[in-house]
Amino acid sequence: MDRLTLIHKGQVNCGCIYSNNPSFLSCHRLQESLLSSSSGYSNYRGVLNWCVVMLVLSNARLFLENLLKYGILVDPIQVVALFVKDPYNMPAVCLVIVSNVFVLVAFYTERRLSVGCFSEHFGLLVHSINLSVILCFPVAVVLMVKSVTPVGGAVALGVYTILFLKLYSYKDVNKWCREMCYAKARSLSRSISCKSASATFNGKNNSASTSAFNQNQDLYYFVFAPTLCYELNFPRSPKIRKSFLLRRLCEMVSSWMVPIIQSSMKPLEDMDLSRMVEHLLRLAVPNHLLWLIFFYTFFHSAMNFVAELLQFGDREFYRDWWNSETVPYFWQNWNIPVHKWCLRHFYKPMLKRGVSKWAGQSAVFLASAFFHEYLVSVPLKMLRPWAFLGMMAQLPLAWFVACFLRGNYGNAAVWISLIIGQPFAVLMYVHDYYVLQHREESAGVGPD
Amino acid sequence: MDRLTLIHKGQVNCGCIYSNNPSFLSCHRLQESLLSSSSGYSNYRGVLNWCVVMLVLSNARLFLENLLKYGILVDPIQVVALFVKDPYNMPAVCLVIVSNVFVLVAFYTERRLSVGCFSEHFGLLVHSINLSVILCFPVAVVLMVKSVTPVGGAVALGVYTILFLKLYSYKDVNKWCREMCYAKARSLSRSISCKSASATFNGKNNSASTSAFNQNQDLYYFVFAPTLCYELNFPRSPKIRKSFLLRRLCEMVSSWMVPIIQSSMKPLEDMDLSRMVEHLLRLAVPNHLLWLIFFYTFFHSAMNFVAELLQFGDREFYRDWWNSETVPYFWQNWNIPVHKWCLRHFYKPMLKRGVSKWAGQSAVFLASAFFHEYLVSVPLKMLRPWAFLGMMAQLPLAWFVACFLRGNYGNAAVWISLIIGQPFAVLMYVHDYYVLQHREESAGVGPD
Repeated sequence: MDRLTLIHKGQVNCGCIYSNNPSFLSCHRLQESLLSSSSGYSNYRGVLNWCVVMLVLSNARLFLENLLKYGILVDPIQVVALFVKDPYNMPAVCLVIVSNVFVLVAFYTERRLSVGCFSEHFGLLVHSINLSVILCFPVAVVLMVKSVTPVGGAVALGVYTILFLKLYSYKDVNKWCREMCYAKARSLSRSISCKSASATFNGKNNSASTSAFNQNQDLYYFVFAPTLCYELNFPRSPKIRKSFLLRRLCEMVSSWMVPIIQSSMKPLEDMDLSRMVEHLLRLAVPNHLLWLIFFYTFFHSAMNFVAELLQFGDREFYRDWWNSETVPYFWQNWNIPVHKWCLRHFYKPMLKRGVSKWAGQSAVFLASAFFHEYLVSVPLKMLRPWAFLGMMAQLPLAWFVACFLRGNYGNAAVWISLIIGQPFAVLMYVHDYYVLQHREESAGVGPD
Repeated sequence: MDRLTLIHKGQVNCGCIYSNNPSFLSCHRLQESLLSSSSGYSNYRGVLNWCVVMLVLSNARLFLENLLKYGILVDPIQVVALFVKDPYNMPAVCLVIVSNVFVLVAFYTERRLSVGCFSEHFGLLVHSINLSVILCFPVAVVLMVKSVTPVGGAVALGVYTILFLKLYSYKDVNKWCREMCYAKARSLSRSISCKSASATFNGKNNSASTSAFNQNQDLYYFVFAPTLCYELNFPRSPKIRKSFLLRRLCEMVSSWMVPIIQSSMKPLEDMDLSRMVEHLLRLAVPNHLLWLIFFYTFFHSAMNFVAELLQFGDREFYRDWWNSETVPYFWQNWNIPVHKWCLRHFYKPMLKRGVSKWAGQSAVFLASAFFHEYLVSVPLKMLRPWAFLGMMAQLPLAWFVACFLRGNYGNAAVWISLIIGQPFAVLMYVHDYYVLQHREESAGVGPD
């Protein structure tokens, strides 16, 4: 060993004759493999491309069949037709059109508040009534009008829920603005007692009121912008990139052609109670792929498309939830608009009122569970606790993952809960819906 | 707009009353979505975990069936039985055992060379004969002994190919060492003419010779080490991590249980010539998954396992080929031991002899194509140009990708060539093998 070291050192010292190839004697160095977790390597962009290529290739035959049989644009047209041509589906469209009324009420209230025609208390009352009606009115329509389909009802309720969150934010931010201006005015008038100060105060107050009125002209921009949090000056992107728009549009169009949906929904129609577990496993993978495609199409393609059109600058619609090693990390990062809204208009105001952190988090969780239930139970016209329980089941899961699993194992656990948990809830609803329909049918046949 | 700016600035200036919540009025900032290529984000470690979870879940039913029917260890035992118990398969095992002879010949030759018993020319002659026999001897055995199965033949030829590359490197490095010592000795004796220099020269030369002899005791370490490039002092890892060994072992064991293999190989047996394209598409995905599992099991689990056992420090067995945006990048990064060997013992020596870069690259490519053909044609006992043509088809593909595709599109093209190209070559061999077997069978039945 000593002699080995000797000759090795000797070679290094004696000036290599292969000077253009200095590594000819030692070509190894101490290092870990990239896939070992200890290497710290994490650039797997290529793996994402692999997933897309595999998804396309695996479905290539069905994809081509679809294309040849129905042409490219059959599905979007079908969906448009579903809403426009069929008179039985009009209620959902009407509901969406009617929602403008609530936007105008909020706008009118803020306008009155800004010029001082409404007192703060009366304004709050009007806003509260308006927001309550936004939540209750579509429920009443969906439950009472028989011709509303589950899909139409879900879309209408989704629109109303988004509108509720947006107008709540709009109300809050405008109130905060006024409070700030009053506070500044008060501090100014307190510290300086001469006329000039009073003039400044009046001037400021006027400009604030007038501009608050002017802002309201931007309310429709906010309604269509891909965010739930109102702001006076949204960051704007410098220009509309046409190639970007085109790529997002292509992604949205091609997502219609993925045939997973049809192949996965078939076995559910002739469902057998005894084989539920097998159904669950068979349902899990296509359901999960469907969710991923929905995520990409809605949170990346569609929202970026709208943002590019409106030159809306903040494109953070999701964070890196695919790397989440704990359950809370996933919930905090997969849907940033809702997460931002909850933080800004629900959690932080609660903390300011002295509510404890723990109670605040639980309240956010309960509100989230409520809206999940709201968006599923009402369109299906049956009140079942599955979506609510599904959200609640996240709490023990989060505890388990945080206690026992770390790193890649935690990440795998989050993925498994997504892949298995979701279809379980979906299966429960489908089962109940099927039983309900069946009972109604047999009841309908009975008196005949 | 001016007024909006005014009120906004006013709010910032006037000292926020919500000082514990400074972002209450502006909660958006100019930024891109993470999945947009312009964001520069690339941490998708979670996507890799997703692939593993999906692979396991998709095969969960087959996986469980396999486990319940055959138990965990049936497949490895079957493979061991294939080599040990069945007397018809002994030739492959014998071939592997006989390979020790060539290692000992190389060792003996170097020992003689180091003490000066063999001249450089005679040593080169012995090495050349030894290396030629390493390549030709197993071919003769596989082709002449009828009882060698394709799998046994492929394993034996693989072992001999690896041995050929290792002993070639061993020969080269020892020669370089001697050349360097002689060169140093010559320069020393030229510059200093007194006796002390001569003494130094003799001393150095002796120590070099003796240590070259001592190194040879490490030859078996090199034979088993996961590298093809010989070196005097390999970098060593400080200790054997038992948990690391265990994890790699678990990965190797679980890779035996993936049932893709069985389900993919069935349709080939009753192959129909007219439906080749459909077969190709049906073959592509499982074949590709099989290749990925092979890659992970061999290049990550097995090589790291051996390296950990031998405390071999350099774990770079592959680089980030999954991100490759050009075809050459893939070939240079997916198999680092071979790439390193080609660079060190084939390409760079050629450049030193004045061969042009272009000719050198082509020669490396031809050699690689030759070995691909060698490892496939001989075990199947039929000489077909498909593997060779497959390698050669990489050249126009590389040109096309480099010219027309960039970034993620280039990456997707490399993936598609991997997913589609490989099974195409495999299909050609399987088809020819099937036809050959069929002809032999009917010929055997004929005279009856």
